[in-house]
Amino acid sequence: MKTVSNVVNGYAHVAPATRAKVEEALARLDYRPNLSARNLRQGRTGVIALALPELDAPYFAELSRFVIDAAAERRWLVIIEQTDGDLERERQILDGVRDHRVDGLIFSPIAIGADELAARTDDTALVLLGERIHDGPADHVAIDNVRAARDVTEHLIGLGRTRVAALGAQDSSISGTAPLRLAGYRQAMAAHGMPETVATVERYHRADGFAAMTALLERERPDAVFCFNDLLALGAMRAILSSGLRVPGDIALAGLDDIEDGRYSTPTLTTVAPDKNELARIAVDLLKRRIDGRAGYAPQEVRAGYRLMVRESTAAPSPS
Amino acid sequence: MKTVSNVVNGYAHVAPATRAKVEEALARLDYRPNLSARNLRQGRTGVIALALPELDAPYFAELSRFVIDAAAERRWLVIIEQTDGDLERERQILDGVRDHRVDGLIFSPIAIGADELAARTDDTALVLLGERIHDGPADHVAIDNVRAARDVTEHLIGLGRTRVAALGAQDSSISGTAPLRLAGYRQAMAAHGMPETVATVERYHRADGFAAMTALLERERPDAVFCFNDLLALGAMRAILSSGLRVPGDIALAGLDDIEDGRYSTPTLTTVAPDKNELARIAVDLLKRRIDGRAGYAPQEVRAGYRLMVRESTAAPSPS
Repeated sequence: MKTVSNVVNGYAHVAPATRAKVEEALARLDYRPNLSARNLRQGRTGVIALALPELDAPYFAELSRFVIDAAAERRWLVIIEQTDGDLERERQILDGVRDHRVDGLIFSPIAIGADELAARTDDTALVLLGERIHDGPADHVAIDNVRAARDVTEHLIGLGRTRVAALGAQDSSISGTAPLRLAGYRQAMAAHGMPETVATVERYHRADGFAAMTALLERERPDAVFCFNDLLALGAMRAILSSGLRVPGDIALAGLDDIEDGRYSTPTLTTVAPDKNELARIAVDLLKRRIDGRAGYAPQEVRAGYRLMVRESTAAPSPS
Repeated sequence: MKTVSNVVNGYAHVAPATRAKVEEALARLDYRPNLSARNLRQGRTGVIALALPELDAPYFAELSRFVIDAAAERRWLVIIEQTDGDLERERQILDGVRDHRVDGLIFSPIAIGADELAARTDDTALVLLGERIHDGPADHVAIDNVRAARDVTEHLIGLGRTRVAALGAQDSSISGTAPLRLAGYRQAMAAHGMPETVATVERYHRADGFAAMTALLERERPDAVFCFNDLLALGAMRAILSSGLRVPGDIALAGLDDIEDGRYSTPTLTTVAPDKNELARIAVDLLKRRIDGRAGYAPQEVRAGYRLMVRESTAAPSPS
């Protein structure tokens, strides 16, 4: 009975063969656990919240699919909350998910700082997902953004490009995604003694990439651009092609996120592919540990893997 | 006190000026209702579920953003469940959201039929969102798919195209999106006495559009293609451009959904824009009425609006 309970509850310490046998028997009996009763008994709701800036950004939509899938393996349901990266709404999320009880919170903050996170009084189990806050007061999973950005920039330089611009810096942010990716770009440029060109944006949408690239083309003409996410890159691609220049012939273009759009654009988009499935699984695993043994150990920081995906949008310069 | 209660609870019958005054006072007092207590008192959870095929399809991600926003105005939280269009998982959703209590369910089914819906025993309030099941046993909101598909096809014919193909029919489906859009295409073709060319797909992803268009180009060469959604169209666009043909010079191309990708592709994509915000609001309003007065009236069927968005991918044929 104990072994069956371990399988049903998704605990790890069951031999694979034993687990398979139990699961087969459960399937044959069409067993469905009474989750509400069990959760109540354990003082749990069986529901976690995922708070992110916006579902209509493909990166967050793709990530959400993996978080929901990983949570389902723990038999958790997922409430999704959108903050639009608004500081006030991020503060409200940290205070509790609109006064509803949830077992835990996976949070991709944009605006909030480490100091406010540290001052949080709500004791719901918390895992941070994404690049924002390092060495903070909560468990955290992200890819190594500095190294990923350096890899992309090195790739562009390695193609023989000499005027490599970065697109996606943000005036406002003192921590988080933009400074980390900018730092990686700068490391690569400095290593090759190349002058920097940096274009700033307000947000990370296609429209921002389009506007920033249009402005950049008027000011100076880079021969390669590393955009800090794929939406910026797809907006920038449209701006370059609309101006009559070629990608990659005149300007090589790379992004970061590996959203599906960039696999079908013309040209297809070179990018960094964070392992979104791994990010989601680690986030859910960290949350499970935190729920089970809350406040029993120091905040964990875990890195997920990534890969550079070289596609049509980056190649050596070609004469027109 | 009654008026304040009406405002806090989001009831409609409060004069706008009065509502504004109450809301201002609430804001000044930083009032936050104790939702859990109130919901318990009313026998409600304050949580609804949104069940859809997949969050990583941009149409559903964009729609989800609006559903979450509309639900937030009712002070509801939204659990998202993904079915991948799998019949067994859709059946499970209809049986109850993994044994958790929710106040209502907004459901975009793909595989399940009207007969199974009618035989449902779970009495959670239900609203169907999307094209699948008409004249069914539940409230339902969708755009007029037949008319929208006919409009797109008429637009292509009106440009002087003579070999207009449809891409997105499905062998398996006897009701739902594909047959409705196919019917609209057929009405327009018949009205002009033009021969039909129909390409089938398994699913509605970019990869399916790419494969179906590649096969279509080998078999015959249409001079216009109406793809039954934007992802199919973006996959087809990639296939056409890869083959060395031009869009729209050689082949005019249109989709349906108006996802953001198609506003930045090169060429930008002509499409039908369903009013996603309206779809979401109607779904939430129908659900609210059903929760408040369950089983008290016949199933409602409501149409949301749409617009034809003519962009670069459709134009008169141009000589090469």
